[in-house]
Amino acid sequence: MRLKEVYLDSGASTIVDPKVLKVMGPYFGKVYGNASSLHRFGQQAKEALEKSRSTIAKSIGAKTDEVVFTSGGTESNNFTLKGIAWANKSKGNHIITTKIEHPCILESAKWLETQGFKVTYLGVDKEGFVNLKELEKAITKRTLLVSVIHGNNETGTIQDLEAIGKICKKHKVYFHTDACQSYTKVDIDVKKMKLDLVTLNSHKIHGPKGVGALYIKSGTRITPLMHGGGHEFNERSGTENISGIVGFAEAVRVANKKHVKHIKSLRDKLIKGVLTIPGVKLNGPEGNQRLCNNANFLFKGVNAGVLGNYLNVKSIASSAGSACSAGQEKGSHVLKALGLSNQDAASSIRLSLSRFNTQEEIDYVLQTLPGLVRKLRKGSWIEKVVNKIVLRE
Amino acid sequence: MRLKEVYLDSGASTIVDPKVLKVMGPYFGKVYGNASSLHRFGQQAKEALEKSRSTIAKSIGAKTDEVVFTSGGTESNNFTLKGIAWANKSKGNHIITTKIEHPCILESAKWLETQGFKVTYLGVDKEGFVNLKELEKAITKRTLLVSVIHGNNETGTIQDLEAIGKICKKHKVYFHTDACQSYTKVDIDVKKMKLDLVTLNSHKIHGPKGVGALYIKSGTRITPLMHGGGHEFNERSGTENISGIVGFAEAVRVANKKHVKHIKSLRDKLIKGVLTIPGVKLNGPEGNQRLCNNANFLFKGVNAGVLGNYLNVKSIASSAGSACSAGQEKGSHVLKALGLSNQDAASSIRLSLSRFNTQEEIDYVLQTLPGLVRKLRKGSWIEKVVNKIVLRE
Repeated sequence: MRLKEVYLDSGASTIVDPKVLKVMGPYFGKVYGNASSLHRFGQQAKEALEKSRSTIAKSIGAKTDEVVFTSGGTESNNFTLKGIAWANKSKGNHIITTKIEHPCILESAKWLETQGFKVTYLGVDKEGFVNLKELEKAITKRTLLVSVIHGNNETGTIQDLEAIGKICKKHKVYFHTDACQSYTKVDIDVKKMKLDLVTLNSHKIHGPKGVGALYIKSGTRITPLMHGGGHEFNERSGTENISGIVGFAEAVRVANKKHVKHIKSLRDKLIKGVLTIPGVKLNGPEGNQRLCNNANFLFKGVNAGVLGNYLNVKSIASSAGSACSAGQEKGSHVLKALGLSNQDAASSIRLSLSRFNTQEEIDYVLQTLPGLVRKLRKGSWIEKVVNKIVLRE
Repeated sequence: MRLKEVYLDSGASTIVDPKVLKVMGPYFGKVYGNASSLHRFGQQAKEALEKSRSTIAKSIGAKTDEVVFTSGGTESNNFTLKGIAWANKSKGNHIITTKIEHPCILESAKWLETQGFKVTYLGVDKEGFVNLKELEKAITKRTLLVSVIHGNNETGTIQDLEAIGKICKKHKVYFHTDACQSYTKVDIDVKKMKLDLVTLNSHKIHGPKGVGALYIKSGTRITPLMHGGGHEFNERSGTENISGIVGFAEAVRVANKKHVKHIKSLRDKLIKGVLTIPGVKLNGPEGNQRLCNNANFLFKGVNAGVLGNYLNVKSIASSAGSACSAGQEKGSHVLKALGLSNQDAASSIRLSLSRFNTQEEIDYVLQTLPGLVRKLRKGSWIEKVVNKIVLRE
């Protein structure tokens, strides 16, 4: 059996759902007005914009005017860190985040450090969870913001936002989560989780690229990253990308619990199958504490980049680390934060699924992968080891 | 005669060309990989990205790696002002711009003033031109950047970038232009004009919304507005909006001189016809010093907002001021900089064309407009005046 293409990199980007593409259609050649314009072309665009905003807001338990559209997760995360820092610097200069954030959080934080802010990067346990006591201990009187990724993009670790929210509320610091990977897969309730800011993204949930959103709780003091015409409640200027926004909202409408169940069952089958290969470990937690679409495996003694290439030749798309660090040979900062050695991090591959994957595709991967791993290990020390014992810690 | 819809607001946003939409198609449901991914889904996306970059670069005489994709004009302008200010603050703290810039330049500048930077806002003459001697005089040893809009979005005034570039080069300050309105309509040559940064935009040239670019000359010191995974030569992080970028590049490929000629002939017909209405003046320059698609009229004694509504009822889309300030009653800052009184600024309407407009549409506007103006003036002082004389300064 050889399938045409097996896409197991939905953590990097997803196929646009045909239903999504269909609703986007009219917003290129028919309703093409600027949503700020007062004529009917503009007002039709405005109507679509506000309907979309309402969809996104409802999906996380927010009020409509608490959702601001952006160009994607990177913008929303930059906006949060820089915008909160700038707007509140008279109150403090300290930000708390973790070692397992997406690069757009980490690099924004590092840049803020060059501008006089202080940042605490919390470590995680071997499954990728933040220690709540450590988090609470890190909060000082100068702390402005705690930013913790909801579902990790590499290991799928889902943090307990409700517990973190309680701590932030108690100490009166803003609480932000990057929910790009978890959105539509794990419930997000901004009230229950006491969230002040939430980053959302379209292209990870079968919407188009180039669009995202930021939930900003009413009353939050934040400086715009994009100044200008005063769009989006004066919080994010720039002509709204209506086709993208409409597609994003449709992707949210289409997503449902059945998809999650389907993805999880495929993912569990994949994990079970791959773990029968000798010398393989699952990175990150098991079961419900992990994003339904995420699997991340350590193939002891195998170069992940080379295995990725071999999989590519067999028409299977995977990822060594996240897409953003693909092509870099440093090894994932997330896996290292979970305690993996450089070598083990560089032997790990992420296989991330979507509802468009099938049983047949997973069967194909499970038929193909063991042979590739054997081939790559041929003649190396690990071959001798796995011939004798099956590693499983 | 009543046409279905006459869209004369292409300065706010344009219809997406069907040819553009066609090339975008595959990048939603087929080539949907993340351009940073190493498998074939990613590499196909990367190829499309680089081909598009090359198209944009060639169109302005730049090298391919000098073009960075963004989410649009607002981002490119924010990126320029803030990025140049942050990266060069050890050298100076002064920025020069004009009073007729788009709000995203003006608001970025105002914000930088709150962060310790100084900004000079140059005035313009009654046609909207910057005085070159004044510009040169404003440059000090602390000046980092001169930012002047190429073709003005409200009055169509085209600045002499070559002359400004020479002055900037002489004094070794960075030179930026916002070319959102002029791109594909007026030639831009970054070498001849000695430009260091150029803002470009897709949705003003029949490409999709939500995508733009910034030309950054090699060697320019600029701090990213978006930190993260290091996309776009480490200058603008965030997963690239491939469908949008491909569409943007196709819009550039499709645009040609014949379109400019067609638009200009319609525009000239429109101006000639509208100026036969008593008590009407053209705001901004005439002929080739004005963007081919722009007309802006002062209807003495008429409330532009109300006239806009009347036009809308007659299925003609116009704009009182720019789209970004639509709905605001302050009156255009650009028209006021040209010397118009508050009242005259609030009596002015922009009619902006595209190659998709027809002779028939212009005929319809010229048949419809005089009656509406008469109706609005009925019983007012201006009616009595125009019954006696035809205002023309």
